Amino acid sequence: MKKNFLIFYYALCCTLLFSASSFAQQKDSITIRQIYDEALLRGQAYTQLEYLCKKVGARLSGSPQAAAAVEFTRYIMDTMKLDKVYLQPVMVPHWVRGAKEVGKIVNSKQIGEQEVRVVALGNSVGTGKGGITAKVVEVKNFEELKALGKAKVSGKIVFFNRSMDATKFNTFEAYGAASDQRGAGPSEAAKLGAVGVVVRSLASNIDDFPHTGSTRYQFVRQIPAVAISTKGAELLSGLLKNDTTLLFHFETHCQMLPDVLSYNVIGEIKGSEKPEEIIVVGGHLDSWDLAEGAHDDGTGCMQAIEVLRIFKTLNIKPKRTIRAVMFMNEENGLRGGLEYAKVALEQKEKHIAAIESDRGGFTPREFSTEAPAEILQKMQTWLPLLEPYGITAIKKGGGGADISPLRNQNTVLIGYVPDSQRYFDLHHTEQDTFDKVNPRELALGAGAMAALVYLISEHGF
Amino acid sequence: MKKNFLIFYYALCCTLLFSASSFAQQKDSITIRQIYDEALLRGQAYTQLEYLCKKVGARLSGSPQAAAAVEFTRYIMDTMKLDKVYLQPVMVPHWVRGAKEVGKIVNSKQIGEQEVRVVALGNSVGTGKGGITAKVVEVKNFEELKALGKAKVSGKIVFFNRSMDATKFNTFEAYGAASDQRGAGPSEAAKLGAVGVVVRSLASNIDDFPHTGSTRYQFVRQIPAVAISTKGAELLSGLLKNDTTLLFHFETHCQMLPDVLSYNVIGEIKGSEKPEEIIVVGGHLDSWDLAEGAHDDGTGCMQAIEVLRIFKTLNIKPKRTIRAVMFMNEENGLRGGLEYAKVALEQKEKHIAAIESDRGGFTPREFSTEAPAEILQKMQTWLPLLEPYGITAIKKGGGGADISPLRNQNTVLIGYVPDSQRYFDLHHTEQDTFDKVNPRELALGAGAMAALVYLISEHGF
Repeated sequence: MKKNFLIFYYALCCTLLFSASSFAQQKDSITIRQIYDEALLRGQAYTQLEYLCKKVGARLSGSPQAAAAVEFTRYIMDTMKLDKVYLQPVMVPHWVRGAKEVGKIVNSKQIGEQEVRVVALGNSVGTGKGGITAKVVEVKNFEELKALGKAKVSGKIVFFNRSMDATKFNTFEAYGAASDQRGAGPSEAAKLGAVGVVVRSLASNIDDFPHTGSTRYQFVRQIPAVAISTKGAELLSGLLKNDTTLLFHFETHCQMLPDVLSYNVIGEIKGSEKPEEIIVVGGHLDSWDLAEGAHDDGTGCMQAIEVLRIFKTLNIKPKRTIRAVMFMNEENGLRGGLEYAKVALEQKEKHIAAIESDRGGFTPREFSTEAPAEILQKMQTWLPLLEPYGITAIKKGGGGADISPLRNQNTVLIGYVPDSQRYFDLHHTEQDTFDKVNPRELALGAGAMAALVYLISEHGF
Repeated sequence: MKKNFLIFYYALCCTLLFSASSFAQQKDSITIRQIYDEALLRGQAYTQLEYLCKKVGARLSGSPQAAAAVEFTRYIMDTMKLDKVYLQPVMVPHWVRGAKEVGKIVNSKQIGEQEVRVVALGNSVGTGKGGITAKVVEVKNFEELKALGKAKVSGKIVFFNRSMDATKFNTFEAYGAASDQRGAGPSEAAKLGAVGVVVRSLASNIDDFPHTGSTRYQFVRQIPAVAISTKGAELLSGLLKNDTTLLFHFETHCQMLPDVLSYNVIGEIKGSEKPEEIIVVGGHLDSWDLAEGAHDDGTGCMQAIEVLRIFKTLNIKPKRTIRAVMFMNEENGLRGGLEYAKVALEQKEKHIAAIESDRGGFTPREFSTEAPAEILQKMQTWLPLLEPYGITAIKKGGGGADISPLRNQNTVLIGYVPDSQRYFDLHHTEQDTFDKVNPRELALGAGAMAALVYLISEHGF
């Protein structure tokens, strides 16, 4: 009898436990459905992005437009009845492009003179008036460059012409594998006495829009550097095959001015049960100066704000504190991300998670996280709740540049991973404009981020 | 000893079997990698699609452009050294739009007269010169229409204004749930004495491009019918709320001409081991007349041809026969699909599988199939081979319209399922143009189809 009772008791407990867990899952499922309905039916991110792109426009760190973007996003969040909206001061680099660049094949045996499209690399020094004109050595990587040695490189323009690997499904992998040319190419070339650098645009496609992006000078002479459009790169490379006397000319007027005061823009909903545990959701507010920074990273910022709006509108009281952060200066300094983490440490804040959207506002696919195995496994138990909305995996992988300085504060870093096929057609070019953003794709991203924030806030790690 | 020997023998067999299966998997994996490399690095689908869109253009069944599309695709396949390229005759409907449509709010109390964008529904009768002008009753569905009854509908224009449900992740589900208005709306309205029908465009977005598409008249008076842009629908619906005397006017000049001879275009690689077992891969060659039929369904056709090209270029000898079929007349009759299945039956051909790509040339997500459970399970064992390229599921679901007549011939029907978020912004509008297609997304789709064809050809079901 006693045994029977125990079995009955055990069965009852199991049933109750199962019911409780199934009830929790059902509640989560219903809330997440509401989150997506709000994003898809009454989403604000698209309209707000239009304003950011069309009225504010390109907003490189230190520019008046970056300041306007700070005011615009603070204004939106001020109207949302959040618990706190504030600006976090940060000094940022102030690089300016100056007059439009000129790029030219000077004396091709085959086609004579021919203009090609180039843009100065971010943070690079200008050639000044008159520009530079020199012979060209083409290399695919630093090994080839070093093999040429000083004798063959000195006095020349080095042309880094390694393509992004089109066979990689994940275009960010291809980008990562090619980006050393832009980041370190100018300094590597300078070490061997080069007078300038032309880098093939980091692009998935062949077109005539050069892609800018940061270069990082090392302790070596700073030489001028431009990105050439992929079409230009193909042309130049083809001509060089039979023409060692070909001269290339480029002229840039960029310069680095003194640092400028700018801000991270932060909005917060206080947690109802564990307010000291903070979940950050963010993107970066600055953009390159060539277009509107629509996918890079207007979409991420507007999605982060949308997460807070959805919580407020649906009157979801998060157990933990949620912060939307528009980081300043991801593109050419990461000063906003660094400052945010520094202040967090000083204030002894406890950031349990940070989610960044900085891979474009495209259709959802995954979340990637640097979390240790047991936390990753816990997050993966939530996957069935997100799969109906196109999130098919939560995987080991990177978080994002702006949140990376939180890595040493026990923060679970998470990246929102939309489909990557179209991103590097637009990235850092004059093509990164509002019309390239699809409102459903944008809204689904906001929904995914809000749903994950909700789950972390409800259940912790 | 004997027992030990048996254990040893068993272990050996397992090892060999495992090695054999692992070897086969490895071979598949390598071949699939080669397939994708070919599609991504040297793909032809994008260039050929450009020709189809820009030089051939809109190709409604019976039009000269449809005939040109037949010649163009036959020509491409003729140059590919296939085992067989042929045209399969089929009589198709020949509906013509005639002079551009006019749509107009005639006498709104609020805004007076206002033109709105409308297009005649495919297969609909025209109003002729002078058009029709009548009061409007707005309904969301057939129940509301029937509730109004003859008294309130007779002599009026019925305005079907049910939106696609934006909360559905899969936009095809939302489309399916709203498309009865276009397909059966005109006949349902005619039964109650309506003089014309205005249907809200089946669209994901709000813009000013009306979406055409077929209507199917039942045995009832055929009344003229147009689709109104979603922007126009919103305007009209808003005005009707306080304005029961509002008159709407539209004029269409479409008509159905006698049937015309056209063709399915077919290319074939003969199987090396089981040539009698046929795998079809296809799309439909006809398009609506408003644009270039880029995503609907130029992409599907070019992907199907690309599958054959990849097999030829890589010199993969398929065990089973592979046929690329460009079906004619999916849009307003399905005659090509019906004829293909009829001939297959007459010739006692054995179609083991048919894969259709007719959901746009967007980034890959899934395959869906009507296959019975055991075949579905077998296909799902292949999923790890496709996941690295963005195919995250093989699921129960529809195949495609053109291949559906093969359903009763024991054919496994499979649909290629790319991401659906952007499709219904473009579908059946003047916006369905070449520039909306991304070359990587197109190539990944061709790769996915070629990989699946390869696996079916190697392993059967």
